[in-house]
Amino acid sequence: MIDGNTLIFATPGDPVAQVRLPEVMEAVFAALGVNAVWVPMHVGPEGLAAVLQGLRTIRNFRGITVAIPYKPAVGAMLDRLTPRAQASGSVNLVRLDPDGKLLGDIVDGAGFVRGLELCGYAVKGATAWLVGVGGGGSAIAAALAEAGVARLYLTELNKERAAAIHERLGRYYPKTPLQIVHGPPDRVDFAINATPCGLGPDDPMPFDPSVLSEKTVVCDIIMKPRETRLLQAAQVRGMRVHHGQHMLDAQIPMYLEFLGIPFPDERAVMEISSRA
Amino acid sequence: MIDGNTLIFATPGDPVAQVRLPEVMEAVFAALGVNAVWVPMHVGPEGLAAVLQGLRTIRNFRGITVAIPYKPAVGAMLDRLTPRAQASGSVNLVRLDPDGKLLGDIVDGAGFVRGLELCGYAVKGATAWLVGVGGGGSAIAAALAEAGVARLYLTELNKERAAAIHERLGRYYPKTPLQIVHGPPDRVDFAINATPCGLGPDDPMPFDPSVLSEKTVVCDIIMKPRETRLLQAAQVRGMRVHHGQHMLDAQIPMYLEFLGIPFPDERAVMEISSRA
Repeated sequence: MIDGNTLIFATPGDPVAQVRLPEVMEAVFAALGVNAVWVPMHVGPEGLAAVLQGLRTIRNFRGITVAIPYKPAVGAMLDRLTPRAQASGSVNLVRLDPDGKLLGDIVDGAGFVRGLELCGYAVKGATAWLVGVGGGGSAIAAALAEAGVARLYLTELNKERAAAIHERLGRYYPKTPLQIVHGPPDRVDFAINATPCGLGPDDPMPFDPSVLSEKTVVCDIIMKPRETRLLQAAQVRGMRVHHGQHMLDAQIPMYLEFLGIPFPDERAVMEISSRA
Repeated sequence: MIDGNTLIFATPGDPVAQVRLPEVMEAVFAALGVNAVWVPMHVGPEGLAAVLQGLRTIRNFRGITVAIPYKPAVGAMLDRLTPRAQASGSVNLVRLDPDGKLLGDIVDGAGFVRGLELCGYAVKGATAWLVGVGGGGSAIAAALAEAGVARLYLTELNKERAAAIHERLGRYYPKTPLQIVHGPPDRVDFAINATPCGLGPDDPMPFDPSVLSEKTVVCDIIMKPRETRLLQAAQVRGMRVHHGQHMLDAQIPMYLEFLGIPFPDERAVMEISSRA
């Protein structure tokens, strides 16, 4: 029930009709007893500036997540970025800090890593092959480096994009061994699709899981369909797979924490969001 | 249920915790099946500018009502005002028109007049004595003039305020006979309290109903308490009274109409809002 004390959160995007977070957060707020509302905001680039100005000045407007196409662009409009947001070149979370500065973060990648951990996989010290370093992939690359992978292999057809993420990761995570590769490495713990390949029913697989060691965990960040052709092929071969939904579910507690909304238990929040 | 297609409406104010409209509109939207949310926005003067900029640029942000203390100030930030908003010197409704201009209106007074009509009273051709021409009173004065009262008497202790509304009403409604008085006129159809006298339990009455003709309808715009000392005294004397709540209930359909939200039936909407 909205009243005069309700806090406002928002997701600006263009388009915004596909955004599911407002529904998810309505369920989360209700379950947690938080007097807050999460609204979609359909904005062009000039509207994004208006939303940020609103964050600075509307006292019960407390934070945003950023939807397409603004994740790469919004960082330049903020006062501060977390290291992983700087390294990934994208922002998906913004809040106003008590000193009046807007802070940007990205938890897409952290959500992916936490999703793996919650499924029982150790990420620290592991080796990972990441295919695709667009918005989502860049964030995952930064989060894998931040989580302390022993070695990170990147494959990306767009050479400029590959060079840019290679340079940024080298700057922010100089201790992480990093290698651009054009095909599957000999042996990795995780092989991750972060390309859009698999969204469409006739899409080719982003890579062939049969050339990997059978111990490799094959991961996809695509949520719909849940069973992408890649994951199906890996399962047929008896490999372990990791679905795209985990990445989103694990982010909801991170949104709450970043935005200062108290919650008692990470798994309880994920359970609510996965049911919403 | 909020989703990616939800429209946003808001009430900026300072403070805003006391604002009841978000709750009322949640019930109205639910009953009408409108996918929209009404949020309170706690803003200082610079935040009001941010809210208006949001109205111009956030495509699913469709309109606002203005709470204290911004009704007198917001007009200067808009592109266009209705005649009654110009005459009353206040704005409580703002929308973005298709040509990109912000239009301000005020329906506080219109809601009061409509509330009288819906209770079976004829306002056109009647005589009215209005005590207090602050924000609410000015809007009521303009609405009574617009509704075609035969004569309007005004009482206001603040001489500057009295002179200002006298000048504006004379300009926008030159055909309405208007008179500043310092005590009760001999005979009026409606005697209206638009001062804050009666909000507090120990407040004196704004005027003594016993000096008026017994046929006068005694009106209050105070909603809490419902039975002000003024209305109680009038009832004791057997006079008809008109409660403050009618003014608010009658405004809800006006908000919907101004903001372009379809609704089938005025009384049905008022019934929903009065129950919320």
